[in-house]
Amino acid sequence: MLSKNQIKLITGLDKKKYRNKHKLFVVEGLKNIQEFLNSDFELQDLYAVEDRIQSDGKIQIISNSELRKISFLTTPNVALATFKIAEAKPIKKDGLILALDTISDPGNLGTIIRLCDWFGIRDLVCNLKTVDCYNPKVVQATMGSMTRVNITYLDLEDYLKNNNIQPVYGAFMDGIPVYSVDLENNGVLILGNEANGIHNSLGDLITTKISIPQFNNSNKTESLNVATATAILLSEFKRRTIET
Amino acid sequence: MLSKNQIKLITGLDKKKYRNKHKLFVVEGLKNIQEFLNSDFELQDLYAVEDRIQSDGKIQIISNSELRKISFLTTPNVALATFKIAEAKPIKKDGLILALDTISDPGNLGTIIRLCDWFGIRDLVCNLKTVDCYNPKVVQATMGSMTRVNITYLDLEDYLKNNNIQPVYGAFMDGIPVYSVDLENNGVLILGNEANGIHNSLGDLITTKISIPQFNNSNKTESLNVATATAILLSEFKRRTIET
Repeated sequence: MLSKNQIKLITGLDKKKYRNKHKLFVVEGLKNIQEFLNSDFELQDLYAVEDRIQSDGKIQIISNSELRKISFLTTPNVALATFKIAEAKPIKKDGLILALDTISDPGNLGTIIRLCDWFGIRDLVCNLKTVDCYNPKVVQATMGSMTRVNITYLDLEDYLKNNNIQPVYGAFMDGIPVYSVDLENNGVLILGNEANGIHNSLGDLITTKISIPQFNNSNKTESLNVATATAILLSEFKRRTIET
Repeated sequence: MLSKNQIKLITGLDKKKYRNKHKLFVVEGLKNIQEFLNSDFELQDLYAVEDRIQSDGKIQIISNSELRKISFLTTPNVALATFKIAEAKPIKKDGLILALDTISDPGNLGTIIRLCDWFGIRDLVCNLKTVDCYNPKVVQATMGSMTRVNITYLDLEDYLKNNNIQPVYGAFMDGIPVYSVDLENNGVLILGNEANGIHNSLGDLITTKISIPQFNNSNKTESLNVATATAILLSEFKRRTIET
């Protein structure tokens, strides 16, 4: 049976303040939990309504109604685990680094982490205003990809200034069509906020403004969703690495 | 003031049965409504808490609490309109046609409609099991793009068999990497269901199986989200049209 303190601890982990205090985050669902168990993340506690997960004897069997009490999902999925928040590994300078400027929607960040995993982006750097990757909604949306992408939160302006990484690509509505830009397989690609794009303070640090051209004649289409734009740009960067 | 019958009619329009019975659907928000007013769609009724939309004298001013009663949004946005469901126009055979096989998530369909608009896809054909494009969640997610894409619901198998459109590209996990396939700027591109992919019954009708290759070595990544995959594939098809 779950104690009141256990329930209080877990249900508080939707807040960044408590995640940072306890250095813990929540993963739900058998498949997701299995991916985290097979990774460098360290398990804290594992709760399951049935004994269907292999682990080192740490499973606490709970009832369905107990799972509903601690789950963040509309439809709880057999098991819930807490893992320890890990320190990010040092950022490598070879290969393309993806940088996010103030992405606020958890679903978008989750999709972007999945894309990093798919396209072999090792390092994702997020400015401090980007939604926390240990937010339960982000963790669920990543479908385990979080275990294979190194995510670092930092001051993006300082990082770009102090590390002399070139080139710095930025996604803009009025950039050069990405299809006709020389894309190198290293440097940084920055995607900006859902509503406001890339912050002005980063403007001088960007060496190449790129855009995804529209193929209709109306020019009325709203900008693409940031996760959709990330998908198209990462595909284009990576395509070039196999065609040269 | 809104009558009980008006409220009942509008709040029922989240159900396909009532949309089809009344031949009406709901659009919310000034910007969205303005796009539909400027399109071929015919306005039925327009409700606004302030007189901020230009129209032909059909605006009914309502209170904020009335708007909350009829809105499908968590945060209602000044105005709500009902428009008449239009018959789809005939499907053109030139240019690339996008076909959806049983897409069930309204957000995914909304994103895909926006992508069709962005990439100049005139015709989107959906099999009969795909979520209805007049669902309020889809309409909101399209951000007005629905006014510029011709959406037809039909039996996809019959359509492909009877219209002799070639080539028929299908997105599969195990297809040929899209980057190395000759892509024509006509024919049909099929994307399948979020969980189950393209239905077996369509298999024999597909001339080219394509895939988006993974660039990591783990092979553990879940398949890409269908809207994300659509973004990458449409970008790749359209890029070729400007490079040749």
